[in-house]
Amino acid sequence: MDGPRATLAAVAEAAGVSVPTASKVLNGRTDVAAETRARVEKVVARLGYRKPAAARRRPRKAVTMLDLVINELDSSWAVEILSGTEKVAQEAGMSIALTAVHSNSTLTRKWLDSLALRGCRGAILVLSDLSGYQRAELARQEIPFVVVDAVGQPDESVPSVGATNWHGGFAATQHLIEHGHRRIAVIGGPQQLMCTRARIAGYRAALDTAGLPLHPPYVRYGDFRHQQGYEQTRELLKLPDPPTAIFAGSDLQALGAYQAMHESRLRVPDDVSIVGFDDLPFAPWTAPPLTTVRQPLQEMGALAARMLLSLIRGEPLGARRAELATNLIVRGSTGPAHCGH
Amino acid sequence: MDGPRATLAAVAEAAGVSVPTASKVLNGRTDVAAETRARVEKVVARLGYRKPAAARRRPRKAVTMLDLVINELDSSWAVEILSGTEKVAQEAGMSIALTAVHSNSTLTRKWLDSLALRGCRGAILVLSDLSGYQRAELARQEIPFVVVDAVGQPDESVPSVGATNWHGGFAATQHLIEHGHRRIAVIGGPQQLMCTRARIAGYRAALDTAGLPLHPPYVRYGDFRHQQGYEQTRELLKLPDPPTAIFAGSDLQALGAYQAMHESRLRVPDDVSIVGFDDLPFAPWTAPPLTTVRQPLQEMGALAARMLLSLIRGEPLGARRAELATNLIVRGSTGPAHCGH
Repeated sequence: MDGPRATLAAVAEAAGVSVPTASKVLNGRTDVAAETRARVEKVVARLGYRKPAAARRRPRKAVTMLDLVINELDSSWAVEILSGTEKVAQEAGMSIALTAVHSNSTLTRKWLDSLALRGCRGAILVLSDLSGYQRAELARQEIPFVVVDAVGQPDESVPSVGATNWHGGFAATQHLIEHGHRRIAVIGGPQQLMCTRARIAGYRAALDTAGLPLHPPYVRYGDFRHQQGYEQTRELLKLPDPPTAIFAGSDLQALGAYQAMHESRLRVPDDVSIVGFDDLPFAPWTAPPLTTVRQPLQEMGALAARMLLSLIRGEPLGARRAELATNLIVRGSTGPAHCGH
Repeated sequence: MDGPRATLAAVAEAAGVSVPTASKVLNGRTDVAAETRARVEKVVARLGYRKPAAARRRPRKAVTMLDLVINELDSSWAVEILSGTEKVAQEAGMSIALTAVHSNSTLTRKWLDSLALRGCRGAILVLSDLSGYQRAELARQEIPFVVVDAVGQPDESVPSVGATNWHGGFAATQHLIEHGHRRIAVIGGPQQLMCTRARIAGYRAALDTAGLPLHPPYVRYGDFRHQQGYEQTRELLKLPDPPTAIFAGSDLQALGAYQAMHESRLRVPDDVSIVGFDDLPFAPWTAPPLTTVRQPLQEMGALAARMLLSLIRGEPLGARRAELATNLIVRGSTGPAHCGH
């Protein structure tokens, strides 16, 4: 078709609609009747209409990608961080290249190898581990990166975003103490994770502050998932002096604790109070609604993206490490201690 | 540093570890003591060691991206589809470029404009709407695409993946009828969505099959989110002849129904049975555990990715439209009808 290009006016005329209406259809607006839309689209196809180049608004610079690498895409936790990152990237006109490495070093290496080929400008790492070699490889490729919810020793040279895990653990435990609980257990995530250590340190500090001793059998470790919450709670309930309250370390582990309680015909919070950690979207809708420590996951993802954009632009970072505040959300899964169950 | 490059053996020797141990550290393996790891990494940094090019295993061809475009990244529903897509893309050595368009036509257009610049090879669309113009633009750019959970009229020319929504609606309603329910309400998603229409058609067919009349006030529409499930259930409970069972159309709407029941001091399932749709990860852990129609969301995302890879390779598709089976998962939120509440 080498003839003159169809105009918007010609499309509108042939479809028997106004130019603004034809324009709405072409721009994908939804406030057009389905029948009208179909008629305009048919004419667009017939006349081979294409919007003029200017109207297609091609960005002048090549679109660039921010990489987000995560261990598993298997929970609301992941999608909350991702969602915050995506919004900031989009405002900056960037897309997200998403890679799940499933805690597998081969996949992590493949990802590292792909960066240059894809023209990656920067990376956000939501990983449980990143070796010195991997960091060196990112540095060699001059790819700036920001770590979310870092593991291992905090390294001051690495920009990172986290939550105030210690405060969260403290607040959860203090809340239980204020309800009269004295036999308070905790289920952390994997023992080597910084966030686990910080939450459990907060738990210990709250006990200390109240002059309560730490009872070692009450300190448990899981993997932040449901099944471990269930199994650790079953073990706790079998103790000769079972706890009257459990700080479950994550919302998923709290749901596992609910299940263990349910199977033992114990009620939350009448028999045992439960506190989660995360405040995932389902937390208000469990029965009873879950008292939990809110982590601002979307804000953490967004802040990591903003820090990364600063690094890419060569701007100075205000601080290399930012911890966003957690806060306790009291709902229905915590109540006064009854020591007689 | 122009001298001879450091070898792995030199690194191992300087760190006082075996060559296999040094190799483990460099490959990011976790089965190395933290102290050993730190020592090797220090030597790597000091000697400026880099793995030989062959060992870095650069892929021979440029890494390519599959685009996944979704309206909102705000639920487990989204992450389940994404997760299935990501696994298949990764097996094919591809990354996922993720874009959320927030039902906004400007963002959708921006995304279309970015495709050529990014060298996009194909796209998976998880969108509530895609105009004919947008489709034409993908065709013009010769970018194959597959639609997941399509809206609007099914168009045979568009490759798509869905679930057997009609069967799901039928199975959910039949299950309630078998428990003696006669006053059964349904809350769909947005009325214009094909999946809503199919689920509600399945509901009607099950009533028909049992010789039960359709009571129009029992047919409601929401948006698949919690709040609408809550509000529509409140309205249903205010009817002079409130339902004894609700097919809530989505798991999130089912949680909203739970909340409305709880506020009215009604029990699930003793007073009203509730069935969800989706089987999101939290469904087994609500109280009571949710009876729901499972949609194989990960499998749907994976199948869409496999179809897209076939299209990119120019292979024929077995079928342009695939619907994966839903199945009813009976848990604790449904029980016998008691008509006296």
